[in-house]
Amino acid sequence: MSRFLSNESAALEPYTPGEQPQNIPYNKLNTNESPFPPSPKVLKAISRAELLKMNLYSDPTCAALCAAVAKRNDLKPEQVIAGNGSDELLSFAFRAFCGEGKGCAYANITYGFYKVWAQFYHLDAKVIPLREDFSLNVDDYMDFPGTIFIANPNAPTGMTVPISDIQRLLEANRDRVVVVDEAYVDFGAESCIPLLYRYDNLLILQTFSKSRNLAGARIGFALGSAELIADLNRVKYSFNPYNVNRLSIVAGAAAMADEPYFQKCTSQIEKNRAWTVRELTALGFTVLPSQANFILAKSDRIPGGALYEKLKENGILVRHFDAPARIADFCRISIGSMEQMEALIDEVTKLLEEL
Amino acid sequence: MSRFLSNESAALEPYTPGEQPQNIPYNKLNTNESPFPPSPKVLKAISRAELLKMNLYSDPTCAALCAAVAKRNDLKPEQVIAGNGSDELLSFAFRAFCGEGKGCAYANITYGFYKVWAQFYHLDAKVIPLREDFSLNVDDYMDFPGTIFIANPNAPTGMTVPISDIQRLLEANRDRVVVVDEAYVDFGAESCIPLLYRYDNLLILQTFSKSRNLAGARIGFALGSAELIADLNRVKYSFNPYNVNRLSIVAGAAAMADEPYFQKCTSQIEKNRAWTVRELTALGFTVLPSQANFILAKSDRIPGGALYEKLKENGILVRHFDAPARIADFCRISIGSMEQMEALIDEVTKLLEEL
Repeated sequence: MSRFLSNESAALEPYTPGEQPQNIPYNKLNTNESPFPPSPKVLKAISRAELLKMNLYSDPTCAALCAAVAKRNDLKPEQVIAGNGSDELLSFAFRAFCGEGKGCAYANITYGFYKVWAQFYHLDAKVIPLREDFSLNVDDYMDFPGTIFIANPNAPTGMTVPISDIQRLLEANRDRVVVVDEAYVDFGAESCIPLLYRYDNLLILQTFSKSRNLAGARIGFALGSAELIADLNRVKYSFNPYNVNRLSIVAGAAAMADEPYFQKCTSQIEKNRAWTVRELTALGFTVLPSQANFILAKSDRIPGGALYEKLKENGILVRHFDAPARIADFCRISIGSMEQMEALIDEVTKLLEEL
Repeated sequence: MSRFLSNESAALEPYTPGEQPQNIPYNKLNTNESPFPPSPKVLKAISRAELLKMNLYSDPTCAALCAAVAKRNDLKPEQVIAGNGSDELLSFAFRAFCGEGKGCAYANITYGFYKVWAQFYHLDAKVIPLREDFSLNVDDYMDFPGTIFIANPNAPTGMTVPISDIQRLLEANRDRVVVVDEAYVDFGAESCIPLLYRYDNLLILQTFSKSRNLAGARIGFALGSAELIADLNRVKYSFNPYNVNRLSIVAGAAAMADEPYFQKCTSQIEKNRAWTVRELTALGFTVLPSQANFILAKSDRIPGGALYEKLKENGILVRHFDAPARIADFCRISIGSMEQMEALIDEVTKLLEEL
């Protein structure tokens, strides 16, 4: 920290992303990436002709990408905004829909970045604990007057809130925005997108990083009424108008149009998840009921931190969270290919035998 | 604007980027892009193997890219941070080095986004007019206690401040950060980089969008002491850690390593600029003395707005700024290939003859 840093920035508590070792051949199950390469259509779309145009700015409206997202979801293009990952758009949503006298509410436990953005924008935050079983009780949010952020499926639990519960929140106060972060929705959970036709106070975030095999392209998108999306564009044009690069616009549009590949990849992850849950359960693990491309699991025989360390020593990266204390016993394990999951189970079996 | 927008966000006055018509064959001289394709080494670096890894997150530290930038400039990698365009890093600099009781100062006229970021972060801004001849008098900034932002060369004038003047600012108050935005430095101006060895209160911004032919890849970088760069990383990790995508990291590192191509492209732009200035001057234009890849020019015979419109009707895009009033008579013209500049001069000649 330099002597030049503003007090406000000195007070920030930055997010800690999962480890991203470069060029080290880990079995990488720690940041919920897809184990499958991008769609062949993406590879084709990033043509030599596109590369030769990289001297020109990208389209700040990301029209081709937003059109592809709108078409897939039966929405109008003006109901879509694209971002440099859904993280950027979440940040914009905190900026657009919260402020003085308009705080934010989110769960403890949920995506750890919500807390960081609330701090980044100096917002009052109401942090509402999950139930003992890690489920989210929407009634706890019913009277909150500010903007509500719900990850559904939740991270790092993978557990879902029923759509009917989200609808009750939307109904309860039509002058309040409910932001539903659906980064992990495509692995068997139910999306709130159909509710967009009835509620103009609903904002949905999705990403190309998980189910579209493009974490490295950094593309997220938000869906909502044209007015909500215009608000987010207002923030975007006050921060960084050219926020998505040329190749990611092309890649994203191609990925969104390849429905069969998307279905094939996501259903394979669901199968691999079911297999992994069965195997871990057989090994005595408690596994929370996940609809995401990761699971949160614990064993009574080895603490979460120790399991993380042992696996890392043996070439397998998973994620362990020291805080909050309620999940310190768990590890979050991304669902990779069958080969990756078999290697994990083999290693866990061996570790438990050695205890 | 929806009924949900926060008062703070409603008060924003977003930046208006230059027009980016998609798939319309304009002679595009309006957003200071390079007319040349990326280095052949960039095309090679974006290999099939790299594309197949787009399912994995990019390196949040952008180590390969920062190493290439550091090597080129004889700095340590920890003195470099990469961003999603230099716009993102400028925004981070406003956040890191300004705040309550620590305002920002910048010129009127300069890059129009400084005003927007000051507003985005609710900062006190001291706006200091340029001299009548559009030169910047650093003595006007000498006693300012907050953070100083200077575009050098300036936009949209293309005019430079001598490095010795920047040094005087750095000397005058060692507890104040001077941010020098060198987006346009590579076309004949002098960089402040050598001053980094002596001043830990200097932050320099550069970009791949102009002299490295990669506007569409969205890559900027900042250079400073390891402590200043750590401060910017603190902000980055509180906003969007994975801010540069995989292919841009690879493309940027390759572009930075191709010094001969860089030299060839930038010196060609300098030649084309000299030619264009001579031709416009011969046509009676006043052209400000630019060291950038654009020029600000006016004719007594046709107002700036009318020239912009006439050129656009005839397939040539330049940029006209309504405000501030002092430059409303001018058009900003990017320096493209000789073919593009010849087409511009032909059209301007024709337009003037028709008046």
